[in-house]
Amino acid sequence: MSFNQYPDSLERLISFFKKLTGVGKKTAERYAFELLEWKKNEILSFSKSLHDFTEKISRCSTCNCIIEKQCFFCTDDKRDTSILCVLSAAKDVYFFENTNMHKGLYHVLDHLINPIEGKGPGDIGINKLLQRFEKAPIKEVIIALDATLEADATALYLKKALEGKDIAISRLAFGIPLGSMLEQVDEGTLTKALLGRSSF
Amino acid sequence: MSFNQYPDSLERLISFFKKLTGVGKKTAERYAFELLEWKKNEILSFSKSLHDFTEKISRCSTCNCIIEKQCFFCTDDKRDTSILCVLSAAKDVYFFENTNMHKGLYHVLDHLINPIEGKGPGDIGINKLLQRFEKAPIKEVIIALDATLEADATALYLKKALEGKDIAISRLAFGIPLGSMLEQVDEGTLTKALLGRSSF
Repeated sequence: MSFNQYPDSLERLISFFKKLTGVGKKTAERYAFELLEWKKNEILSFSKSLHDFTEKISRCSTCNCIIEKQCFFCTDDKRDTSILCVLSAAKDVYFFENTNMHKGLYHVLDHLINPIEGKGPGDIGINKLLQRFEKAPIKEVIIALDATLEADATALYLKKALEGKDIAISRLAFGIPLGSMLEQVDEGTLTKALLGRSSF
Repeated sequence: MSFNQYPDSLERLISFFKKLTGVGKKTAERYAFELLEWKKNEILSFSKSLHDFTEKISRCSTCNCIIEKQCFFCTDDKRDTSILCVLSAAKDVYFFENTNMHKGLYHVLDHLINPIEGKGPGDIGINKLLQRFEKAPIKEVIIALDATLEADATALYLKKALEGKDIAISRLAFGIPLGSMLEQVDEGTLTKALLGRSSF
């Protein structure tokens, strides 16, 4: 062990915490040192939960959502199979569920189109999405992507790819977020809010 | 699985991340979802590193520092056994090592005196500290605790406990941190800096 170095097992644990986005050297060290105060059983359970995560969590082969045994959404026959909400991240599904507003199905794309990261239209998983239309009588597709350039490009591509099908395609409204003050809202958002104004 | 709930294995993993200080629900979820993008092998290695941490990392029975096999400090015969630096956290040892200024030994207290957390003088591990004086010819004790009320109380207690022994006791200097501007320094620190001024 060289001078100024943590013991190997500690150094190794720190390196894994450091892999997490937003976790720098200092924070990773803090996390690892904090585990010194945990009970041994707790750390072993943490270790097991990571192990189980790799064994039990996977993606639904139909909708790409996170599943443990079977897909909560695809196997729920109470859901409206005519509305499909297209998202870019499996996590976003839960944000929608929390609104209690969407009773249809979900489809999570593999990626957004992002030339900087080398992701083109071939990487978003369009075939898996198109297969959904063969399996269910989908009448509406809600494109529920982020408000970013990459999402815009992907939304336009999806619109083109779904052209010719007898379905309504919608995209989430852009505008002023609830609870915000106009002075805090950027010009782009304000422009979108103005263009999308509704009668009152 | 109830509505709006993550799969069990995911929920469980989130709960462990959430135990870390400063990690709230949102951050814990972000960490767990990020693992979906990791390779299976990486997650298993992370899991193993936690497991190994419990097996391999322990505390030195002499100085309370973190050890893997044997204590890096207590077994290094090049260190000056006449100077003992007393710290409140095992992590602080590495901050001192990085300064390259302290060539003596370390002693990490079990706790600071902290009545709010129910920690009295009996909890700081004074006996383990006193045993150090039987084993080595210690001539100076550097009390290197934080600049907090709890550390002050502990430092005073240590000073009393070591009274009568033929040793010099010092405490880290308080003052203006390097790189700071006076307007950013609080009054307490400025008072300490003024009282501790040295000829120039």
